[in-house]
Amino acid sequence: MARNSIVTLTTDFGLQDHFVGTMKGVMIDINPDVKFVDICHAVQPFDVFDAALTIAQAYSYFPTSTVHMVIVDPGVGTARRPIVVSTEKHLFVAPDNGVLSLIYDREDRISVRTISADHYFLQPLSNTFHGRDIFSPISAYLSKGVDPARMGEEVTDYVRFSAPRPKPTENGALRGVVLKVDRFGNLITNITALEAPWLFQAEPQAFKITVGKREITQVRSAYADGAPGEVFAIIGSMGFLEIAANRGAASKLVEASKGTDVNVVLEGAPAASTTAQS
Amino acid sequence: MARNSIVTLTTDFGLQDHFVGTMKGVMIDINPDVKFVDICHAVQPFDVFDAALTIAQAYSYFPTSTVHMVIVDPGVGTARRPIVVSTEKHLFVAPDNGVLSLIYDREDRISVRTISADHYFLQPLSNTFHGRDIFSPISAYLSKGVDPARMGEEVTDYVRFSAPRPKPTENGALRGVVLKVDRFGNLITNITALEAPWLFQAEPQAFKITVGKREITQVRSAYADGAPGEVFAIIGSMGFLEIAANRGAASKLVEASKGTDVNVVLEGAPAASTTAQS
Amino acid sequence: MARNSIVTLTTDFGLQDHFVGTMKGVMIDINPDVKFVDICHAVQPFDVFDAALTIAQAYSYFPTSTVHMVIVDPGVGTARRPIVVSTEKHLFVAPDNGVLSLIYDREDRISVRTISADHYFLQPLSNTFHGRDIFSPISAYLSKGVDPARMGEEVTDYVRFSAPRPKPTENGALRGVVLKVDRFGNLITNITALEAPWLFQAEPQAFKITVGKREITQVRSAYADGAPGEVFAIIGSMGFLEIAANRGAASKLVEASKGTDVNVVLEGAPAASTTAQS
Repeated sequence: MARNSIVTLTTDFGLQDHFVGTMKGVMIDINPDVKFVDICHAVQPFDVFDAALTIAQAYSYFPTSTVHMVIVDPGVGTARRPIVVSTEKHLFVAPDNGVLSLIYDREDRISVRTISADHYFLQPLSNTFHGRDIFSPISAYLSKGVDPARMGEEVTDYVRFSAPRPKPTENGALRGVVLKVDRFGNLITNITALEAPWLFQAEPQAFKITVGKREITQVRSAYADGAPGEVFAIIGSMGFLEIAANRGAASKLVEASKGTDVNVVLEGAPAASTTAQS
Repeated sequence: MARNSIVTLTTDFGLQDHFVGTMKGVMIDINPDVKFVDICHAVQPFDVFDAALTIAQAYSYFPTSTVHMVIVDPGVGTARRPIVVSTEKHLFVAPDNGVLSLIYDREDRISVRTISADHYFLQPLSNTFHGRDIFSPISAYLSKGVDPARMGEEVTDYVRFSAPRPKPTENGALRGVVLKVDRFGNLITNITALEAPWLFQAEPQAFKITVGKREITQVRSAYADGAPGEVFAIIGSMGFLEIAANRGAASKLVEASKGTDVNVVLEGAPAASTTAQS
Repeated sequence: MARNSIVTLTTDFGLQDHFVGTMKGVMIDINPDVKFVDICHAVQPFDVFDAALTIAQAYSYFPTSTVHMVIVDPGVGTARRPIVVSTEKHLFVAPDNGVLSLIYDREDRISVRTISADHYFLQPLSNTFHGRDIFSPISAYLSKGVDPARMGEEVTDYVRFSAPRPKPTENGALRGVVLKVDRFGNLITNITALEAPWLFQAEPQAFKITVGKREITQVRSAYADGAPGEVFAIIGSMGFLEIAANRGAASKLVEASKGTDVNVVLEGAPAASTTAQS
């Protein structure tokens, strides 16, 4: 891969401390040509899944050979390993705690290496800020074109979790979950065209989605297509079913948040009738 | 215009999601030399006027040929048009919803084009994230020097709103409004030297400003010139009259916020006397 | 010093206004090669000490000849002077209000100059936004390699405050203070190996730390080493003693915040016994 000196950052470090700036100082000292792109520093503290979702939504838009640093690292200073992951087009630097699980899901060819090349680390090495002392220098050297193979041995026992998948319920409905609430209050669910193809058709079949305290029966194709106060379903920009409202926060209107159940029933289907009778 | 590869970003996307990072990925993939400058991503959601005010305060400080991307786009996916606007020195990319109105006010020569060159768009084109799929690639190509004329036809029926202007009241006072509360709690009003030249003189005439629950009779020339707890008027860095306090939030002290009326009475003027008698 | 065109920014300007973007516009107009690194814009408004601490934690990681802009400036527009400070490796641009005090503490060779070269300033010069009109152009010219000596005369009467230092108490304890609460709720104290070397040993002696409503008797070497809900001491990445919790906010668990007293008693020491008896 040709180097392009781009390093993206996805962390739970927030922007109210010096953390992110300090890491960039370390990197630009090693690679003066580095180009930083912040993806998000507002990942919920210690929330590995939230970080996994965030980087999964963004990484593929970056050029070949971009280095993606993903640091949500509650185990910093313990035995959890730092890793570098190569996919066909990108590199990832992260703690081995599953934060790259959605990348593993989406990429066919991955190579995972534990980082043992401690001559790249900052000295003295702290026990509490590996973002600065390990992940930053490793990312910077990778962005300069250092071969990932020089960072350590390939491993196969890396940590990987499964994203929650929607499940059919006994009465024929589909039960998903809210993965995230975005800035606008849209509820991003884990339901895609794979599980509910009929929702994603140009002329979707009649359905009923129950989430929080609302029942939703409309799919809209644009946020502004809904009437004021109306809560509707929409296919989001990442292919997930979202619950949204026109110029309003669906999260408040339906009283739902991350982790809330989302039940989808296809109207007219036998199971759906059963539900309707109850 | 010589290209300089600068793209500024003004949006209501916030920083807690992947949105801004993803857009930058799209742009740096198209123009590896792009230089991003974030102006603000904390525009109030869907608040077109807030975005208009934000970009108006910043754009003129950037070099010639900078591309300013301004995305507050409640109508994403509907018939509202994406536009590219050329002024004498700068380029703007935005939805045609009035978000560039204050630019139209300040610039003498403007050319507005609807963006129809869909071969520049990202494919597949989503209905919900044109920031990523339309505005980012268009901005990136413009920053590479592609001629705006290649983006689409010039139009004259673009959306333009008028910023609220202060108005004389029946009793001779001037009624303005708080346009914005800034980070420090300063109230930015819509009153300038145009409407109240006597306030902006080196030795201002006696006056009384009523806003929220306070009456203000002093103009200070620096925030620190006021006594502790004192609320005073000051000419802000953009030429607007501001209501401020020394090391305190005027917004809290006077209990005012965006949209609060601001009444200015020139003391000694006949109308002002009338007010004083009532 | 060879120029590297890096300018870091540490301010209390927040990210909800145009302020930071506007300053970057001014700088990139003067030095098209400038590379910005934001260290922090969420310094508490007007809190000079918080800014001093933030820049002190980050600056040394940047390459030689980096220009660090530090603007927390409640006295903007008054007689307080703008200064440029040269250390062996770095340059700093700030108001002369003590915001660089911790840099003065840490660097052996410093040269402080008042900025009088007003031909570099933006015109018209506002009274309320020197970040834009003075500090930005000065920083940009320094980043282009302009000699600090051309900015103004060297002075020795610059403003400098002392960081609060832990003090021995009458009964043999050590009284420190919480300097800052970080994003994760960790309490950063002002206690270092200098004042309490026995806490920083590989096998620390028995001790008791009282802070807020909790007593702490354990030092951990990693955040994740503590049991759930346990509050413990840890040596932070900047060498300060921190009070932390595993995947929790110590600040909430112990009910402490910036300014809270931190008392450390060495168990078994005579004074500690006295304390234990009371």
